[in-house]
Amino acid sequence: MHDAGHDGDHASLAVPPWLQPHASAVPATGAWRPSDHPGHRRFMTMAVDRAFVLEGGGQLHDVTIAFETWGELAPDASNAVLVCHALTGDSHAAGPAGEGHATPGWWDEMIGPGRPLDTERWFVVCANVLGGCQGSAGPASPRPDRPGVYGPDFPVVSIRDMVRTQARVADALGVERWAAVVGGSMGGMQALEWAVMHPERVARLVAIATCTAATAQQIAWWSTGRRAIALDPKWRDGQYYDAADGDGPHAGLALARQISQVTFRSDDVFTDKFGREPVEPLHGRFEMWQRFQVERYLDYHGTKLARRFDANSYLLLTKAMDLHDLGRGRGSLAAALGRIAAPVLSMGITSDILYPSYQSRELVDGVRAAGGTATYAEIDSPHGHDAFLIDIDQVADALIPFLETTP
Amino acid sequence: MHDAGHDGDHASLAVPPWLQPHASAVPATGAWRPSDHPGHRRFMTMAVDRAFVLEGGGQLHDVTIAFETWGELAPDASNAVLVCHALTGDSHAAGPAGEGHATPGWWDEMIGPGRPLDTERWFVVCANVLGGCQGSAGPASPRPDRPGVYGPDFPVVSIRDMVRTQARVADALGVERWAAVVGGSMGGMQALEWAVMHPERVARLVAIATCTAATAQQIAWWSTGRRAIALDPKWRDGQYYDAADGDGPHAGLALARQISQVTFRSDDVFTDKFGREPVEPLHGRFEMWQRFQVERYLDYHGTKLARRFDANSYLLLTKAMDLHDLGRGRGSLAAALGRIAAPVLSMGITSDILYPSYQSRELVDGVRAAGGTATYAEIDSPHGHDAFLIDIDQVADALIPFLETTP
Repeated sequence: MHDAGHDGDHASLAVPPWLQPHASAVPATGAWRPSDHPGHRRFMTMAVDRAFVLEGGGQLHDVTIAFETWGELAPDASNAVLVCHALTGDSHAAGPAGEGHATPGWWDEMIGPGRPLDTERWFVVCANVLGGCQGSAGPASPRPDRPGVYGPDFPVVSIRDMVRTQARVADALGVERWAAVVGGSMGGMQALEWAVMHPERVARLVAIATCTAATAQQIAWWSTGRRAIALDPKWRDGQYYDAADGDGPHAGLALARQISQVTFRSDDVFTDKFGREPVEPLHGRFEMWQRFQVERYLDYHGTKLARRFDANSYLLLTKAMDLHDLGRGRGSLAAALGRIAAPVLSMGITSDILYPSYQSRELVDGVRAAGGTATYAEIDSPHGHDAFLIDIDQVADALIPFLETTP
Repeated sequence: MHDAGHDGDHASLAVPPWLQPHASAVPATGAWRPSDHPGHRRFMTMAVDRAFVLEGGGQLHDVTIAFETWGELAPDASNAVLVCHALTGDSHAAGPAGEGHATPGWWDEMIGPGRPLDTERWFVVCANVLGGCQGSAGPASPRPDRPGVYGPDFPVVSIRDMVRTQARVADALGVERWAAVVGGSMGGMQALEWAVMHPERVARLVAIATCTAATAQQIAWWSTGRRAIALDPKWRDGQYYDAADGDGPHAGLALARQISQVTFRSDDVFTDKFGREPVEPLHGRFEMWQRFQVERYLDYHGTKLARRFDANSYLLLTKAMDLHDLGRGRGSLAAALGRIAAPVLSMGITSDILYPSYQSRELVDGVRAAGGTATYAEIDSPHGHDAFLIDIDQVADALIPFLETTP
């Protein structure tokens, strides 16, 4: 296919056929829809009688949150662990892919009988975040007040808003106090907010590869992803839900994912895995859209996310991460950290370029300076930010003994 | 402007007005055109009698290269220094902005009377690269064979092709042997190829913040920028040169620049410079397209590049960097490095996340292992990859004594 040569009729820079090879088969949004199989999800609807007022000023009514549970809640409700998911995660933290679940549990190796979060002992809960797209209220959700979905009218949500919805799930489940709240990346932001907003409800806090406030560089990365989505003409100012299959903002969402995928991994791992291998031999001819293997990998991950995610949710959740700032409205970061009653296990990843390990160490220093208890554990991994999803053994090595401590 | 609230008619995610604020005033390409003022440029046209056959298989005829010179060539032609520019640089390495030159010289502090590359002593030359857009043959250039510009028909060029055009410029100037070939980033790739392709013509080699072969991570970064351009509907498969002002692929090129701009700088500097400051006070209301200062900075740099660069050139030159591999077709990297006769000054930057300093150290190790002479100097800077354009004093501290050595 690369032998067309450079005659006058051959546009060597012309659009690559693989940029949207998946388009025709893919719905405009990869969101879970109420008509889809519920899978392992359970649902709770809140804010029925009065509005759920968001931190940033918007309001929502009849807010549905999808969640999943594993194990049994003890009679004294002392064994509940909340697991908070990251940007493109959802309530399906454990279990196989199947009807209603496009992917296997994102922390499947971590959760289950005999696994680090042993469901013979712990009652594990994971809720899809507010603003998400896998069953909880988000842009792809039907509006309660009139036909159609929220689309671009869905208000900006914050990490604190997510936690407030999770607190209502906890109430409904009869969980007064979590034995632990655990999360990595955006999940870690939620875990931190839990411990600050509801110190009495969090017995142990596990924050992995996360930060107390988004840095300018993190904002910069996420903002490029948002601009990629906005650049896609099929995003249509967020009004793409009625678009035909294949006519959604897949290319923009895929590019956003590609950018973040580079920040999720590391130079070393990319070199080991892909080196400079081309997808097809170059045979001494260079063409613009020939790909190296690493490009195929990025295209694959972009396409894959576009099949199972919603572009407007991606905008909302990355904005929530940019707005993440434990100290906001609380006087100072130190004051916020001073509210944490739980002992903290903070885990950093040696090769993380997105949420560098110094942020996880600073969390420890900050909690200690505020009079709290904090332990640092480092995941020594070449895998970059995603190591908390990959190097499960190292996460478990720190997590399991921490769960045994008396808070 | 952020007080619109969340009533039903207000789409909070809707397209931000600033995404293309510059569009109406900007030509479809920011390339220099033959009808523009030449500025300080000189021109040389090569491959008039027979084709210039490119490494990747394409052919070009009547290839014009724009270059600039500073100082006077000594009668024995012993004082010529070639400066090679990086991705978005051009022949205007020194001198003010003015007619024909949208920006001041990109290394202005480095080049001039009494400056580190003292033009009272050295004859300094800088040529716009083949495939570029500031006077040398590239996609925005008129075709010699028929009306119109090359556009997307311009073939993929390699770093070696760039060097071959520069060698002809050297011939024309009467420079048999450069006293030094100096470059950073993509300029360093050219400098390295010079020393391998023409060992007898390079007395000293200065390679700054560059690599002997692009890594998978580097390919990944540049590939996201190319996809940003391709995603812009105004790119039109590269056929945008006849588009009205404001109707070119500015948004795609701007996004490509934004992505790279993050890789050009560092976490520390972004934190120091921007922190978490919003452009306008949030007043407790969160809106999707509110910007933090770092976002305004990225938008500014994106917009700025779109005004002075050509999107198809950006595709070509990033592809040339991805294809950069000193060892290609030479048996091995070691064999290639073994051809270098010049002593090598390799400079790395402590905070560089795009071309990490280990690559500059590996170059030194490789040259030495191949029997050559190499020195490593580190630019200790928080500024990231761009430090070679910012921390001129440190570059000069290593460069000046190196230029005094007897090769």
